Amino acid sequence: MTDPAGPRRLGEFGRIARYMRPLSEGFAGARGLRDDAAILDPPKGCSLVVTTDTIVAGVHFVGDEGPGDVAAKALRVNLSDLAGMGAQPFCYALNLALPQSLEDAWLEAFCAELAAEQARFGLHLVGGDSVSTPGPVTVTLTAFGVVPAGRALHRDGGEAGDDVWVSGTIGDGLLGLEAVRAHAHGPQAAYLIARYRRPEPRLALGARLVGVARAALDVSDGLIADLAHLAEESGLAAEIAAPSVPLSEAAAEHLAGHPERFADLLTAGDDYELVFAAPPAARADIEAVALETATPVARIGRLLAGAPGAVRALDKAGAVLPIDRTGYRHD
Amino acid sequence: MTDPAGPRRLGEFGRIARYMRPLSEGFAGARGLRDDAAILDPPKGCSLVVTTDTIVAGVHFVGDEGPGDVAAKALRVNLSDLAGMGAQPFCYALNLALPQSLEDAWLEAFCAELAAEQARFGLHLVGGDSVSTPGPVTVTLTAFGVVPAGRALHRDGGEAGDDVWVSGTIGDGLLGLEAVRAHAHGPQAAYLIARYRRPEPRLALGARLVGVARAALDVSDGLIADLAHLAEESGLAAEIAAPSVPLSEAAAEHLAGHPERFADLLTAGDDYELVFAAPPAARADIEAVALETATPVARIGRLLAGAPGAVRALDKAGAVLPIDRTGYRHD
Repeated sequence: MTDPAGPRRLGEFGRIARYMRPLSEGFAGARGLRDDAAILDPPKGCSLVVTTDTIVAGVHFVGDEGPGDVAAKALRVNLSDLAGMGAQPFCYALNLALPQSLEDAWLEAFCAELAAEQARFGLHLVGGDSVSTPGPVTVTLTAFGVVPAGRALHRDGGEAGDDVWVSGTIGDGLLGLEAVRAHAHGPQAAYLIARYRRPEPRLALGARLVGVARAALDVSDGLIADLAHLAEESGLAAEIAAPSVPLSEAAAEHLAGHPERFADLLTAGDDYELVFAAPPAARADIEAVALETATPVARIGRLLAGAPGAVRALDKAGAVLPIDRTGYRHD
Repeated sequence: MTDPAGPRRLGEFGRIARYMRPLSEGFAGARGLRDDAAILDPPKGCSLVVTTDTIVAGVHFVGDEGPGDVAAKALRVNLSDLAGMGAQPFCYALNLALPQSLEDAWLEAFCAELAAEQARFGLHLVGGDSVSTPGPVTVTLTAFGVVPAGRALHRDGGEAGDDVWVSGTIGDGLLGLEAVRAHAHGPQAAYLIARYRRPEPRLALGARLVGVARAALDVSDGLIADLAHLAEESGLAAEIAAPSVPLSEAAAEHLAGHPERFADLLTAGDDYELVFAAPPAARADIEAVALETATPVARIGRLLAGAPGAVRALDKAGAVLPIDRTGYRHD
């Protein structure tokens, strides 16, 4: 539609041709971004899954991220949502609102990183929009995944007595954000910052949990909050053994010096691990899936009858930890 | 993902529950917006079509639009893209970046209008995101349509000798924008402003043109520019008879006083009519479709061999009109 701000730099058509079209090559339904819409035909027997996130400079990224970091995170947080549904990447759309002052070089680097990321995760660009804004860089990425029809994992479906599992390690996202803000250096800071900026969507694990887990989602709001979502939608409560929550070496070392921060790690967001519920009979299957997909998993608790969505964390002695925050509440 | 700006007003979860969830009711795959992703299963034998647009306050809407106007236009411009593909509305996703200072009342009115619009056009909300921004209101709407598999209309496919048709009237979008800016009053201004703010996506016409038209798209960049897109993708040139271009009474009256503005009307965007190419043998079919769908159409020219994408407009005497702008170039 009409943008009275008028043309600048390459103009929309030029930018599409130079930066966007190459990202669509290899996906027939994108038709080289030459139509106003793309055709999405999922493979036979599959359902299409769609998820979308908007990230805003100064709000969702701290500001000194390069365009490559922004591109990678925009894609990965959406792929993590797909992983939580047991879906595999199919394609994505990209809406950019960019300040007039932003150089084309920013967009070029952004798209170069997208090219690398989409090759890594096996999907292509199918469409989008690019507009100018008097505000900050605003990136909306919409990811499409495919999952065998009727087999997607959901938040509901957990049963009382199910084990609660989580992949990877918890709390690195928060510590990574803090490391970014503190301009921290050194190998542990670098590890944490990478975890914050380049979360690993647990796609292989998610896909293999289809038919194994009863309920799942990704940890974006915080382990406690996301487990609460799963429990609530399943009509159950949940209990976790805090010492079972897997921590990275960097996080464990941080905690050794600041034990009071444990609750923060459990309730912060941006981990992008999977939390899922499965019957105890599936334990051997899950261990096998973890091995096959080279994704560490830890059994941290169970679902049980109780107030839907209530989550308590027990310490080594079995006492309830005072965790009064149930995770980040989005604005 | 973490939004360090923190909670405000209802918070994301509260806003989803109160304003967004009701918009998803009736579409099973949305699952009440309770998962991180939605399941899209188009009807058997149909392809899914996706299109998306971002609109920014101060750039794409002038600023004194109410939230209802913004909601309606965000949806309709996307539905117009679906119409241009011959697709019917299926569902949509909505990403909002809203200033902290914006009251919930704005969102409430925005969603109330979406409720009315989605009922009118027959689709539901399936997902989205809501974040805060230090910038202006930024709305990304992603619309999904369905079209019989392999039958979507595209920009390419036109053949030399095909008639060029356009629906409705051309130029009202520009005059409506000007009327908004001039705070114009009176019945003609009201008509033009409504055309600008509430364009009518030509969905019934588009659907019935499947198998009848060879190529089509919607007029968002301007009649000349969009016809140029169609011609270029078809490897052809195009010629239109300027006096055949359909004008509303309001536009005709404006032109009577300002004949020099004719080129502006042909090259401005925001008309959201369909321009399409069809063989002369289809003329009777097209007239019948126009009657059935109560959508006026006009035959305005033809495709012909020539430099791909070259479009010329001839006046009453057959002389080429000097139109040096080929339409709005997006930023």
